[in-house]
Amino acid sequence: MTAFQAIDPDFRERVRQSFHAQTVMATIGAEIGAVEPGRVEILLPYRADLCQQNGFIHAGISTIIADSAAGYASFTLFAADEAVLTSEFTVYLLSPAKGERFRAVGQVLKPGRRLTVAEGEVFGESEGKSVLIAKLIATLVRLPN
Amino acid sequence: MTAFQAIDPDFRERVRQSFHAQTVMATIGAEIGAVEPGRVEILLPYRADLCQQNGFIHAGISTIIADSAAGYASFTLFAADEAVLTSEFTVYLLSPAKGERFRAVGQVLKPGRRLTVAEGEVFGESEGKSVLIAKLIATLVRLPN
Amino acid sequence: MTAFQAIDPDFRERVRQSFHAQTVMATIGAEIGAVEPGRVEILLPYRADLCQQNGFIHAGISTIIADSAAGYASFTLFAADEAVLTSEFTVYLLSPAKGERFRAVGQVLKPGRRLTVAEGEVFGESEGKSVLIAKLIATLVRLPN
Amino acid sequence: MTAFQAIDPDFRERVRQSFHAQTVMATIGAEIGAVEPGRVEILLPYRADLCQQNGFIHAGISTIIADSAAGYASFTLFAADEAVLTSEFTVYLLSPAKGERFRAVGQVLKPGRRLTVAEGEVFGESEGKSVLIAKLIATLVRLPN
Repeated sequence: MTAFQAIDPDFRERVRQSFHAQTVMATIGAEIGAVEPGRVEILLPYRADLCQQNGFIHAGISTIIADSAAGYASFTLFAADEAVLTSEFTVYLLSPAKGERFRAVGQVLKPGRRLTVAEGEVFGESEGKSVLIAKLIATLVRLPN
Repeated sequence: MTAFQAIDPDFRERVRQSFHAQTVMATIGAEIGAVEPGRVEILLPYRADLCQQNGFIHAGISTIIADSAAGYASFTLFAADEAVLTSEFTVYLLSPAKGERFRAVGQVLKPGRRLTVAEGEVFGESEGKSVLIAKLIATLVRLPN
Repeated sequence: MTAFQAIDPDFRERVRQSFHAQTVMATIGAEIGAVEPGRVEILLPYRADLCQQNGFIHAGISTIIADSAAGYASFTLFAADEAVLTSEFTVYLLSPAKGERFRAVGQVLKPGRRLTVAEGEVFGESEGKSVLIAKLIATLVRLPN
Repeated sequence: MTAFQAIDPDFRERVRQSFHAQTVMATIGAEIGAVEPGRVEILLPYRADLCQQNGFIHAGISTIIADSAAGYASFTLFAADEAVLTSEFTVYLLSPAKGERFRAVGQVLKPGRRLTVAEGEVFGESEGKSVLIAKLIATLVRLPN
């Protein structure tokens, strides 16, 4: 993986502020984890009220944390006065969304002046085991704030 | 649009039962709407606790209703003893997710023995106006239940 | 479908010039068809040397005409000094790519200042029958030329 | 990357036979490279007659080699009497398709009984330099032959 450089030294604070402004994160119980240049983690403990008909976490819930992790990974590389917007994403559901908690790892694949492409992998974790359950790729737009 | 025929006369009941088994739907306040062969609607009133950082409904919330509408649209065409599983989807975010309520319309594009391709369009509605805010296409797998 | 307005009256000529500058089109034998604001057709007669292992047109060949039809559909709505670039696309292969010729119909779904989302449907045609064989959705970027 | 095991010892021969049955490969000048369990390479020298309007290789040509590399990567893990079919793919165009030759590397991400998800990365190579120009993810279907 390429190492990225953040141009705004306060990128961690900007990511955390924006994350806490996403009301859906408190509603589902998600928390922001590690924030590095081009890489952001979001954590979600399992909850029985976030499931589809088989008792697994709904794919749209996995999407919330994967999309936001990918978006914030991109956002770490932007200037202080720029905003980020997702324009599209694709999600592959690779394994049933089982686990005691879920970790979304967002990672920039290709930064760009206009568009950034980033991945968001979601892992289901239980008792030290970690299984890749979903993989998102997204197009992120850089906007003047 | 092609007209589809349901092979199980109880498809509406099967869809409604499965929808009510999705705990995430009660959590976000979504309700099932019209259920026709190859076409299913899901409704979601706006709630301030389901938003991203700009006060619009989070893309993952739109995905929950779009993915489930597309999945249930496919499910209406299955036999009584078959289950449905999403294997992947792509979502295009076309306009800001504004509105008093949101309507996801799932529609089968191409039914198949193994795989079905279906669309899920999400509209933001307010005061009689309806704007297409997101479009999902998904691959659905037919499984023996 | 929404009706679109072209802002450059010479959009047809710009599309045709750009199409003829795509050397791959002559190589595979594709021709430009109808060009309207927000809608472009590309035609491809079947050729036995463009196939995959089962004698059907290769999915990447369908992609060439679908992607270019979607890109040129977007291009019809741009100003005279702007260029178009595809940033990503998704392709659903809905039926075997059989037919005497193939028609790609590109259609703008949502025009935008930065990004345009457009579809490209590919039909296999034989003896007056037309079957939808592939559906592409793409993100197109507007660039200063 | 996970190491995969092929169940058919003749997988290399099956891949090469199927590749040579794809007439489009001879037409564009593509050749099969390394074939390992879960991983296949396809090589394509630059040709001026495979380009879009700016002189870069057309995205659909990159798709031909990326899709086939991903499909054959999946095919290496199938039984001797099974066939492979792509049902959908997404392609991100990350850099202009420049280079003296192009290398598509297909890699299985998640094998499955019904569906396999695989990636296809395309690199543009010149004078020892290699640049990732496109990334495909595809859903592959396992079929009785």
